[in-house]
Amino acid sequence: MPTAPVTREDAAGLDAADPLGGSREAFCVPDGTIYLDGNSLGPPPRTVIPRLVELMDLEWGGDLVRSWTAHDWIDLPERVASALAPLLGVSPDEVVVADSTSVNLFKLLAAAVQLRPGRKVILSEKENFGTDLYVAQGLAELLGGEVSVRVVERSELMMALDDDVAVLMLTHVDFRTGALHDMAEVTGAAQKAGALVLWDLAHSAGALPLDLARDGVDLAVGCGYKYLNGGPGAPAFAFVAKRHHQALNSPLWGWMGHDSPFDFEPDYLPAEGVKRLRVGTPPILSLAALECGVESIAELGIDRLRAKSIGLSELFIELVENDLGDYGFEIVSPREPERRGGHVSLRHNEGYAIVQALIAEGVIGDFRAPDILRFGFAPAYLRYVDVFDAFRTLVGIMGDSTWDRPEFRMRAKVT
Amino acid sequence: MPTAPVTREDAAGLDAADPLGGSREAFCVPDGTIYLDGNSLGPPPRTVIPRLVELMDLEWGGDLVRSWTAHDWIDLPERVASALAPLLGVSPDEVVVADSTSVNLFKLLAAAVQLRPGRKVILSEKENFGTDLYVAQGLAELLGGEVSVRVVERSELMMALDDDVAVLMLTHVDFRTGALHDMAEVTGAAQKAGALVLWDLAHSAGALPLDLARDGVDLAVGCGYKYLNGGPGAPAFAFVAKRHHQALNSPLWGWMGHDSPFDFEPDYLPAEGVKRLRVGTPPILSLAALECGVESIAELGIDRLRAKSIGLSELFIELVENDLGDYGFEIVSPREPERRGGHVSLRHNEGYAIVQALIAEGVIGDFRAPDILRFGFAPAYLRYVDVFDAFRTLVGIMGDSTWDRPEFRMRAKVT
Repeated sequence: MPTAPVTREDAAGLDAADPLGGSREAFCVPDGTIYLDGNSLGPPPRTVIPRLVELMDLEWGGDLVRSWTAHDWIDLPERVASALAPLLGVSPDEVVVADSTSVNLFKLLAAAVQLRPGRKVILSEKENFGTDLYVAQGLAELLGGEVSVRVVERSELMMALDDDVAVLMLTHVDFRTGALHDMAEVTGAAQKAGALVLWDLAHSAGALPLDLARDGVDLAVGCGYKYLNGGPGAPAFAFVAKRHHQALNSPLWGWMGHDSPFDFEPDYLPAEGVKRLRVGTPPILSLAALECGVESIAELGIDRLRAKSIGLSELFIELVENDLGDYGFEIVSPREPERRGGHVSLRHNEGYAIVQALIAEGVIGDFRAPDILRFGFAPAYLRYVDVFDAFRTLVGIMGDSTWDRPEFRMRAKVT
Repeated sequence: MPTAPVTREDAAGLDAADPLGGSREAFCVPDGTIYLDGNSLGPPPRTVIPRLVELMDLEWGGDLVRSWTAHDWIDLPERVASALAPLLGVSPDEVVVADSTSVNLFKLLAAAVQLRPGRKVILSEKENFGTDLYVAQGLAELLGGEVSVRVVERSELMMALDDDVAVLMLTHVDFRTGALHDMAEVTGAAQKAGALVLWDLAHSAGALPLDLARDGVDLAVGCGYKYLNGGPGAPAFAFVAKRHHQALNSPLWGWMGHDSPFDFEPDYLPAEGVKRLRVGTPPILSLAALECGVESIAELGIDRLRAKSIGLSELFIELVENDLGDYGFEIVSPREPERRGGHVSLRHNEGYAIVQALIAEGVIGDFRAPDILRFGFAPAYLRYVDVFDAFRTLVGIMGDSTWDRPEFRMRAKVT
């Protein structure tokens, strides 16, 4: 269906009608930067600097160790979990905020295998994010023959759900393509086969409405520094459905997961429910930053955020499809918005150099090997005009071949 | 040996002659507070607020995701490890900064058992800190019959070192009494018996000179928020002697421990050396705070810090022994300074209430059940007059029985 070309005025009109129009003021994004990488690292909420200064100055530096009780640091993990729970569609006492996504994956995979005795397989898909597969492989090696990892193509997942599968571990939104699993359908199928399901919500939490309770999810983990704007390397979260709490056993028995951590009993006695998934002393600075991020996102309303994210992504895709010209791009994200997460990915042989050229022009996306250009449409701080301008920048770079310069083609080795 | 009573002028004279005299200006401790709990939570270095504001404002909020390379966030864990290494007496490439002490204990205990095939026992002592014992118990349960935990009295440790012991896990400074293990002697004895040694340095790092290389230590973990002033719940560290790097296998295979984390290979390939002990995305805010803490301590010189800590502790003990009067206190820390860590503990049946009464007067120590009053003498921000004044406050509280009030006797339940 041919349409009239979209103009910058059209985009500005969408912004004028946007119920989230003012929300970008609540986040720090520099003027002149169009930030399409909130799916990798969300920008700071405006609240975070004053909050952390207060925490360091008045609490840590003022009341010192007494702050654990005087400022309720000891309950900060639970407060963040409570703020997060509605975004996941679960009860606050089913969520724990602690450690990293990877460490939480380890805890829940080990727990899942114990919850399904006699079943030995962790099933996942080839395109899953690296750390998910590595954590499973590490657990399998640690437990010797007791557990193995089975990794198949997405299309083969349902057939691979046999009587040996203890847990199906999947990432809800594919980190490369943005493709979304049907959470309810996959969860139901796995459970019908007798397996538990563990969802990695790294690219989901804060990006789209989740209803883990409705969808019958058993276990989940997720990340605080993407769409939850919790800061680089923010603490992660884990979810365990209440029906599994009684039999839940974490492999990491730390003092903060003990029923009475300050009694210094010689033997471990797990705390109630998901609290037993805590391990070491909670990282207060990072948790306070994450609290600011979660609150800033939650108060905007996840349904409105999702609606706008779809609006932004659809505008971008429409522009790419209709106005980009034949530069060899392929849209690898699903075309239907309900089958996508918060980002849209293009494929191009020169993807790396094109992303660098865009960054040099102030349009921050990212590149995922071998040939994926990722553009995150985090609606809390993006406008429709930003999408339009980012697209025009891409057109300019391709038209002038500015991407084809040595400084953009040379890959810096990260780490 | 009777001595003339120590006066406040005597204490002030010691301060005047103190080569660390000005160091307290580098840390935030409120006027009117005498902080004797740096062994639980070190106060903030003055550098930390401006550093974290810069990090949040200019890096996270300015360069956003590009800060991983533009501000070298990706190497921050290594930078902190390098700053820490001299305090441990090891090479920078033998130290990793990541996760919590408890999680690092899990990694190293699992690795230790694999480094000593055929040996099944993790040996420790009854008085070890809770989380150390719990982590070992959790690993043993996870691995079924492959590993067991043997916990004995300190006096029985050497006899318990039989052919089954894979690793002897001890905390260098006892968290209750401050008693110090002889690291070289215990390490040598365990190794002679064919076992590895894992030291928990929670109360050692930043408190006293360590020379893990000289003492032949195999493995160690430690905490960033006590004598390293890294902030509440700061990241922890782990040490592995280079001779074990080749065979080192962490049970937690996260993407940051992969040889090429950003290649997203389907299979885990461990990074070189201790880098394979990394798991998830590094917590940048917390690491930056820890970097400020480690630098602030390291630049004061650990030998000078230790000498002053002994001076402060000896003054306190001398006052308690000679001038406290008969209120039923017992000194439970070793009398010889070279057998103590950085804190001195007293025992008293009413210890809880006495600590609360001291806190109400601005003298912050802490209480460890059932009857231990702990006083940490962290020399970076304490003066000899503080020790004198703290002691006089204790004398006043005991003389007037001000501790015997309902508000001090009622225990608040933590968590």
